[in-house]
Amino acid sequence: MKKGDFKAYRTHHCNELNIKWVGKRARLCGWVHSKRDHGGLLFVDLRDREGLTQIVFHPEKDPSLFASAKQLKDEYVIKVEGQVVERPAGTKNEALATGEIELEVDFLEILNPSQPLPFNLDEDIENEELRLSFRFLDLRRKKILHCLKVRHQVSSIVREYLSKEGFLEVETPILSKSTPEGARDFLVPSRLSPGKFYALPQAPQQYKQLLMVAGIDKYFQIARCFRDEDLRSDRQPEFTQIDLEASFVQVEDIMNWIEEMIQLIFLKVLGIELPLPFVRLSYDQAIDNYGSDKPDLRVEWKIQDASQLFKNTEFRLFREVVEKGGVIKALNAKGTDPMISASVLEELVAIATSLGAKGLAHIRVEGEQWKSPIVKFFSAEERKNLQLLLNMEPDDFILFSAGPREQACSILGKIRLRLAEITQSIAKNQWKFVWVTDFPLFEYSPLDQKWNSVHHPFTRPHSEDLTKLDDGRYNEIRALAYDIVLNGVELGGGSIRIHERELQEKIFSILGIDKQRQELLFGHLLKAFQYGAPPHGGIALGLDRFVMLLTGSESIRDVIAFPKNRHGVDLLTQSPSEVEYQQLKELNIKLSFPSLKIEP
Amino acid sequence: MKKGDFKAYRTHHCNELNIKWVGKRARLCGWVHSKRDHGGLLFVDLRDREGLTQIVFHPEKDPSLFASAKQLKDEYVIKVEGQVVERPAGTKNEALATGEIELEVDFLEILNPSQPLPFNLDEDIENEELRLSFRFLDLRRKKILHCLKVRHQVSSIVREYLSKEGFLEVETPILSKSTPEGARDFLVPSRLSPGKFYALPQAPQQYKQLLMVAGIDKYFQIARCFRDEDLRSDRQPEFTQIDLEASFVQVEDIMNWIEEMIQLIFLKVLGIELPLPFVRLSYDQAIDNYGSDKPDLRVEWKIQDASQLFKNTEFRLFREVVEKGGVIKALNAKGTDPMISASVLEELVAIATSLGAKGLAHIRVEGEQWKSPIVKFFSAEERKNLQLLLNMEPDDFILFSAGPREQACSILGKIRLRLAEITQSIAKNQWKFVWVTDFPLFEYSPLDQKWNSVHHPFTRPHSEDLTKLDDGRYNEIRALAYDIVLNGVELGGGSIRIHERELQEKIFSILGIDKQRQELLFGHLLKAFQYGAPPHGGIALGLDRFVMLLTGSESIRDVIAFPKNRHGVDLLTQSPSEVEYQQLKELNIKLSFPSLKIEP
Repeated sequence: MKKGDFKAYRTHHCNELNIKWVGKRARLCGWVHSKRDHGGLLFVDLRDREGLTQIVFHPEKDPSLFASAKQLKDEYVIKVEGQVVERPAGTKNEALATGEIELEVDFLEILNPSQPLPFNLDEDIENEELRLSFRFLDLRRKKILHCLKVRHQVSSIVREYLSKEGFLEVETPILSKSTPEGARDFLVPSRLSPGKFYALPQAPQQYKQLLMVAGIDKYFQIARCFRDEDLRSDRQPEFTQIDLEASFVQVEDIMNWIEEMIQLIFLKVLGIELPLPFVRLSYDQAIDNYGSDKPDLRVEWKIQDASQLFKNTEFRLFREVVEKGGVIKALNAKGTDPMISASVLEELVAIATSLGAKGLAHIRVEGEQWKSPIVKFFSAEERKNLQLLLNMEPDDFILFSAGPREQACSILGKIRLRLAEITQSIAKNQWKFVWVTDFPLFEYSPLDQKWNSVHHPFTRPHSEDLTKLDDGRYNEIRALAYDIVLNGVELGGGSIRIHERELQEKIFSILGIDKQRQELLFGHLLKAFQYGAPPHGGIALGLDRFVMLLTGSESIRDVIAFPKNRHGVDLLTQSPSEVEYQQLKELNIKLSFPSLKIEP
Repeated sequence: MKKGDFKAYRTHHCNELNIKWVGKRARLCGWVHSKRDHGGLLFVDLRDREGLTQIVFHPEKDPSLFASAKQLKDEYVIKVEGQVVERPAGTKNEALATGEIELEVDFLEILNPSQPLPFNLDEDIENEELRLSFRFLDLRRKKILHCLKVRHQVSSIVREYLSKEGFLEVETPILSKSTPEGARDFLVPSRLSPGKFYALPQAPQQYKQLLMVAGIDKYFQIARCFRDEDLRSDRQPEFTQIDLEASFVQVEDIMNWIEEMIQLIFLKVLGIELPLPFVRLSYDQAIDNYGSDKPDLRVEWKIQDASQLFKNTEFRLFREVVEKGGVIKALNAKGTDPMISASVLEELVAIATSLGAKGLAHIRVEGEQWKSPIVKFFSAEERKNLQLLLNMEPDDFILFSAGPREQACSILGKIRLRLAEITQSIAKNQWKFVWVTDFPLFEYSPLDQKWNSVHHPFTRPHSEDLTKLDDGRYNEIRALAYDIVLNGVELGGGSIRIHERELQEKIFSILGIDKQRQELLFGHLLKAFQYGAPPHGGIALGLDRFVMLLTGSESIRDVIAFPKNRHGVDLLTQSPSEVEYQQLKELNIKLSFPSLKIEP
């Protein structure tokens, strides 16, 4: 211990003292993690952010110090000083960095006492509301602390990598403009412009495109985003995304950066070397083979198309579907037949019918036997071709879905995942990344009776599909959009953007946004496109979800320091809260609640 | 150029090609910065974020290409390909990284045309409203781009340094709780909790203290903060601070980190090695010697105390002030007498009287002569002592201020700065850092008839002043607070905090916050203090202002990508804006404007 070291509170963290320090003096600060009497001595596990150190009080050396130590309770904050000694043989703890030593305390100061905690820090706590009300204690739990450390590490690696690649981190406004075309905005009344509102950004999309027009060339930001949606278990009203945009790039450039960045994160955080490049699937391939645009490639089973095989079948149900332009899709859940009980089969049928199917045909391959209500309708050749197509072997379990392509695929996609779960066919400790590309640009909403963007209105169509914009073949237009999926979870997505005013206006019109509204909401972007906007594209990855996956957390709330609950409430600070009349008056607003019904 | 390189748009940035590349092919993308005909050839300066490259078109080599090139206008976005050639002798430009070469173009693609710009990118533009309306063009200007690059660099260095020192970056909520004790909050109506509001954080103060209670040990964040104040020229409704907090620390620990961090920033950004440690002044010293708690040490003149010297003087005005407990302060504006015209003197007197003085006594030292209306009242000894005290030499200009200490100091403080400005006595290219410490904890507001915090209510009093809390000697209590000042500008400030519930409650009570309100606004923090809160302290530095100083910018708007104007309006996106009735209805609010007067 340096004399006069101005970092006077402590000389070490609680993970640092080890056998090399024996005989030296040290000073530690931390929390009483646990306390026990043993052989007349008093042992305390002292905890700080970095670890635990065992400290020991001897009654005979300083009775008054010993008496003070007896008063210590769990979570008291203390400062101790003493000599590092080797623990007696047989009492060492190999699992602990400091497990070979203990600190023989000759000075103790209680810096702050603690009331008994409402829950035990070493146990899993079911009651999340209680945990969130005492978040400052919940964060002391090793698991949650670990999530915050990983989050910091991921952010650091992202920033380091992107900076090295020439990306500039630029902060974009939080007090932003409402463009009510996407999700619901959070609004902020303006005091200086009465009757007007800022909106919290759902994403820095337009700002980053403006930065490209500004010639920033490569932008990134670890950006806070806001959506006032009804909260599902994995949603938060504010969340963080790794947001980037670059000029003069093509789809592959963006993918390449993201792959390298993710590879680096996995290497540094988990010590795992991911093979590059990641698998690429077109949207059509993803749907056809996995029945999902977020395919989980940890499950090896692929959906096969048996439409050709069955187009002339005696089995009327299949034949009619094919005749009407539908498809016959089949899935071989390899080797799972022995695990399929009647109740499992029932659950799968329920999934299929809930998605609009009339039933769910199946074949159980038991030895040489195919047990199935439908195989009797198949010809010998159909059986042979089916066996070849699906590589059917004993113990396989085959499922069929017949109908319109998207529906048939989607049904088998859902069943594929559920069945993999039930039969534990999801490979453990696997990190299966996949890019899904070439999404449709538009999708028709029968509800709104209009075309909507699958991604957002700034997404660029494939050059070769541009003529279809004029032909009105909107459903055939592919977008230069790409999603990145990890283990069946969408980590993020992006696209090459439109950079020409005319094309952007055309897209807005197809989406039903008239000229006046285009000008009102997006006038700044349309104007910018007239002054030398470069071709550009980008992507955004959800940081919260990424950290969740990396840490194996079950809830997004575990990776956010101060999360909101499902009602958007921070149970610790009790926010949102009522405010004073004067505050609202200055903002020129008043509550319409509870008198909502008398509004126009 | 690698064949098949998928980064197909370009092989280089516009600063990269030099003499080593002569004879090679290259592909560039960028903006037409300027275009000129010379000797039948067409020269274009092609610009991207990194620099300029001269590209040249020969009419004879490809007439149709040359014809296309003739169509180019300023700020067109183009892609060109060609051969790197050495410029003819005499046409090289040493000031440019690419100045020895040019690209002989044999392929040109116009990626996007541009309308004529509303202002010239190479000129200083007076009309800031115009610049902000076209911010995407304004950002193309070298000066503003430089600010964003420095900002990125500073953030990177801060993050790297603090991470290395064991600080964890933790994101705290933007949807936060309103605690209307400081500046005015921005409010966000909650849809899910009708009648309740989030507030945007003025600073993450309480969250970072909660993180200390959580055992995070060392936290930092480059944090967005919000204050709904009337905007002065150097204020923005949202701004960014480098925010940090650490447990088990004393004042010197925080100062040490900040000094090392700033030293690193200066070294890496400006190549300047700042000497450490920075000057430390107590608040009292700062006031006594510089008449300001933000002393500008680039000006060498110090204020001296002449009260003792004049306590028995014949000069009644001085003597009476001292008798009444006031002070006589004197400033020697070294060597400036020849520069003091009658109009300058008049301006200085006006400053003094505007601050409550009756006049402003002075002495002009002209050779051996003291020219002054008051020296005739001084005894020979007083003259001798004054000469010694102020080291009076020919051409010196002496100013006096007599009255209550704070007032007398403050007057000479203001005059010191103004006079230094007028006489150009501010050392150029100097970076004078100073810590100001030991601020008063409270200040009395005659307007509110109550005591207010000088910093904020979480600031810890000096241990030795704690008894004064009970004695009611509030004005004598010093805070463990510190500000860091650069060249007379406050860069940031911090303090050691209160970590005990009782002490915090006592401070709240002195500030006039009753128990019920304490619970309502700060209940979470008071509760946290009961569960083992460690001693802790921290600081926050204004990032915008820091970058402003580092880049020599005149306006804070130059260092923010998308700033608001003085009315809180983003002229580019026209935010804030009107929103739709449906949006307000969902939030359970309505406008009280323009019917404000009919409110209760």
